[in-house]
Amino acid sequence: MAYFDVASSAPLHPVARQALQASLDEGWADPARLYREGRRARLLLDAAREAAAEAVGCRPDELVFTSSGTRAVHEGIAGALAGRRRVGHHLVVSAVEHSAVLHSAAAHRGAGGSVTEVGVGRGGAVAVSSYADAVRADTALACLQSANHEVGTVQPVADVAEVCRAAGVPLFVDAAQSLAWGPVEGGWSLLAGSAHKWGGPAGVGVLVVRKGVRFAPQGPADERESGRVAGFENIPGVVAAAASLRAVRAEAAGEAARLRELTDRIRARVPELVPDVEVVGDPVRRLPHLLTFSCLYVDGETVLHELDRAGFSVSSGSSCTSSTLTPSHVLRAMGVVSEGNVRVSLPFGAEEAEVERFLEVLPGVVRGVREKLGVTVAPAAGVEEAVTVDAVGMVCPRPVIELARAIGRVRVGGTVTVVADDEVAAVDVPAWCFTQGHEYVGATPGTGGAVAYEVRRGR
Amino acid sequence: MAYFDVASSAPLHPVARQALQASLDEGWADPARLYREGRRARLLLDAAREAAAEAVGCRPDELVFTSSGTRAVHEGIAGALAGRRRVGHHLVVSAVEHSAVLHSAAAHRGAGGSVTEVGVGRGGAVAVSSYADAVRADTALACLQSANHEVGTVQPVADVAEVCRAAGVPLFVDAAQSLAWGPVEGGWSLLAGSAHKWGGPAGVGVLVVRKGVRFAPQGPADERESGRVAGFENIPGVVAAAASLRAVRAEAAGEAARLRELTDRIRARVPELVPDVEVVGDPVRRLPHLLTFSCLYVDGETVLHELDRAGFSVSSGSSCTSSTLTPSHVLRAMGVVSEGNVRVSLPFGAEEAEVERFLEVLPGVVRGVREKLGVTVAPAAGVEEAVTVDAVGMVCPRPVIELARAIGRVRVGGTVTVVADDEVAAVDVPAWCFTQGHEYVGATPGTGGAVAYEVRRGR
Repeated sequence: MAYFDVASSAPLHPVARQALQASLDEGWADPARLYREGRRARLLLDAAREAAAEAVGCRPDELVFTSSGTRAVHEGIAGALAGRRRVGHHLVVSAVEHSAVLHSAAAHRGAGGSVTEVGVGRGGAVAVSSYADAVRADTALACLQSANHEVGTVQPVADVAEVCRAAGVPLFVDAAQSLAWGPVEGGWSLLAGSAHKWGGPAGVGVLVVRKGVRFAPQGPADERESGRVAGFENIPGVVAAAASLRAVRAEAAGEAARLRELTDRIRARVPELVPDVEVVGDPVRRLPHLLTFSCLYVDGETVLHELDRAGFSVSSGSSCTSSTLTPSHVLRAMGVVSEGNVRVSLPFGAEEAEVERFLEVLPGVVRGVREKLGVTVAPAAGVEEAVTVDAVGMVCPRPVIELARAIGRVRVGGTVTVVADDEVAAVDVPAWCFTQGHEYVGATPGTGGAVAYEVRRGR
Repeated sequence: MAYFDVASSAPLHPVARQALQASLDEGWADPARLYREGRRARLLLDAAREAAAEAVGCRPDELVFTSSGTRAVHEGIAGALAGRRRVGHHLVVSAVEHSAVLHSAAAHRGAGGSVTEVGVGRGGAVAVSSYADAVRADTALACLQSANHEVGTVQPVADVAEVCRAAGVPLFVDAAQSLAWGPVEGGWSLLAGSAHKWGGPAGVGVLVVRKGVRFAPQGPADERESGRVAGFENIPGVVAAAASLRAVRAEAAGEAARLRELTDRIRARVPELVPDVEVVGDPVRRLPHLLTFSCLYVDGETVLHELDRAGFSVSSGSSCTSSTLTPSHVLRAMGVVSEGNVRVSLPFGAEEAEVERFLEVLPGVVRGVREKLGVTVAPAAGVEEAVTVDAVGMVCPRPVIELARAIGRVRVGGTVTVVADDEVAAVDVPAWCFTQGHEYVGATPGTGGAVAYEVRRGR
């Protein structure tokens, strides 16, 4: 049994458990009250704030505890936008932010604001120049994650912060995926984190607002947490969160080196062991514990299910595992294959033997799923000039399987046109062409949501 | 050492602690994930929801977990108002709601909505007819607490719900203070509760939205908790909350009878033991464990401090203990004395011996504070016709002390005019007249925020 999805949620760190249990007796009273139980609770809260601030790299009075990382993002962005509403209503985000940031951006757009989405390269990183181009005189806020949650790519936060600072625009950093590994470098203005991602308890996030950053908390007033977060403080939770952040940081350097070796091994071995795989995300500038690959011609949900049966808990950003039928916005923005997507994120202490067993099990799992789907994509020497495939009504990964079959029927230089109404095809057909050495000619909208994707055989 | 402030926060119930610890191992994963750790978390979450719904008296799919009672109130009111925005923008609240409700009302007013505040009688209860008068064709929502948090008065929720139902207006009930004792009766539409008030952990609230009630969650979208609450679920917290609610309910009937006897005893004995005390709140229709009294001629903060030194943790709604210098809105709405206010709220298991010791200690504490303030208010047989006292710059309780001294200088039928700029005097001078048998003639605004309060000696 191996849990390889720490990017979704980490098991509670032993230090978090200890701190939580210890503070249940001392931390239940109202820290605003003046009697002894209240004073004890206040001491715990103050100490937790100091410890968390030290780990994040800020002043204690710049940090408040929220009820989740999502809330820290929602409230941080809303407060920063409102604090600068006289400057303007323009928001800049990267295209690969966590949904918490993108949902905030959508809410801002819904309220009449404007949003610029900065694109990323094939490795998932933004270009610093893109932020320089995106910020304007009326930009109230720019947002950039410290590292991507789906592919692990580390973003150039310090350089983007410089660009923003030069433009007089505050930068909000969603640091949910990276805080376990270290503080976020550079002159950012606001930062959000999530305790359950670093081995702390659920129900605790952190929001940092640097001194001097204009900030106007939204929603009904409340006097808790400097007026920035409404609701009675969850003191045992924040004590456990702060203690575990400190504890994981003490282990971070050693674990980073060890897990990077293991994830490098997976990144190198998976393409050797499994045909038609694309390992995605920046190979170097990435989180040490996280990697993602996409397997052509399989649906991610079935792969995840089979891996679960084999004792491995991993995750997927693929549309094929979600109920929404839209492809991962991260993989779409990167222009990489989204079907058969598998994200592996190793917890602190993950064992080499488990990783080796994963590499043993994976090829058979993917092969089994492909066999069930009847995938035979050996490249034949086709003779036809142009072939059209009707994949309307088929869902991921079938349109790409049909395309792969058809490509063997045309000569090199001939074309295959796939007509499909599955939204995922818009991501996966071009990405498939890129990985397989064919030319993606383009897409022509048809009737009833169907789109004709044209591909020219390249080899 | 006796903690008598369970209305602020209750110590963690042993069942909550057990449930929390047990679910730390099983409840840390993402319940939306399909692997085993996710499925286990989902099972815990579903079971907690069922248990909480049964205790609240609703369907499981009507109940979501929030990160606090305050959040349940904020999000419940905002969602209900938005869900009925086509009907109108009128909100009805009682004048004695918790600040979470009043802050929501202020935010609604700030966004252009209108708010009617329904007054209360001297006992703290609303009249059902007041709600009938307040709801209009454009009323989107009415709010009424199940029981008051400062004085314990139980509100006529079922009857008000009938009135609202007849008018087609949903009723939101803040049940934070009463859920430990039982479900809220009547045909309410929405309900909020707070786990740390019933012995559950901090960081968990409940929000119930009855089927058929129009509800539009506000803020950025999030798929958690039926789209009504953003942020990763705190499953150990909700498991502990649900388990402890069930546990306290099993003890509720017995504890209600036992604690009511103890609070009846305090209500009866305090006026015998301490001169110039007003016990406030409805003597019969009240929470079993909570009572409030106000001591003339003392400041609440000093009384609380002295009681803390004597080993008793109690609370106060008096302005004299807060940093805001505004009197308790609850006591002001009731028209009762706010100075020297003490709220006693007994936890489950409070011992009779502790209550007896409190009654032994209290008279000396109040006497000591009065002596320090130099209070000598024995009613003398005065001869003057009219006396004016300058209390400008004095803060609670000094203006009333000056008034009490001066009243002895005038004859029965003569008048004392107190000029004061402390906002609390507007509450306490009329309330003092009521309790002391004098006539409150009225107030005349002067310059610089000073107000002249005229009192006619009645005995």
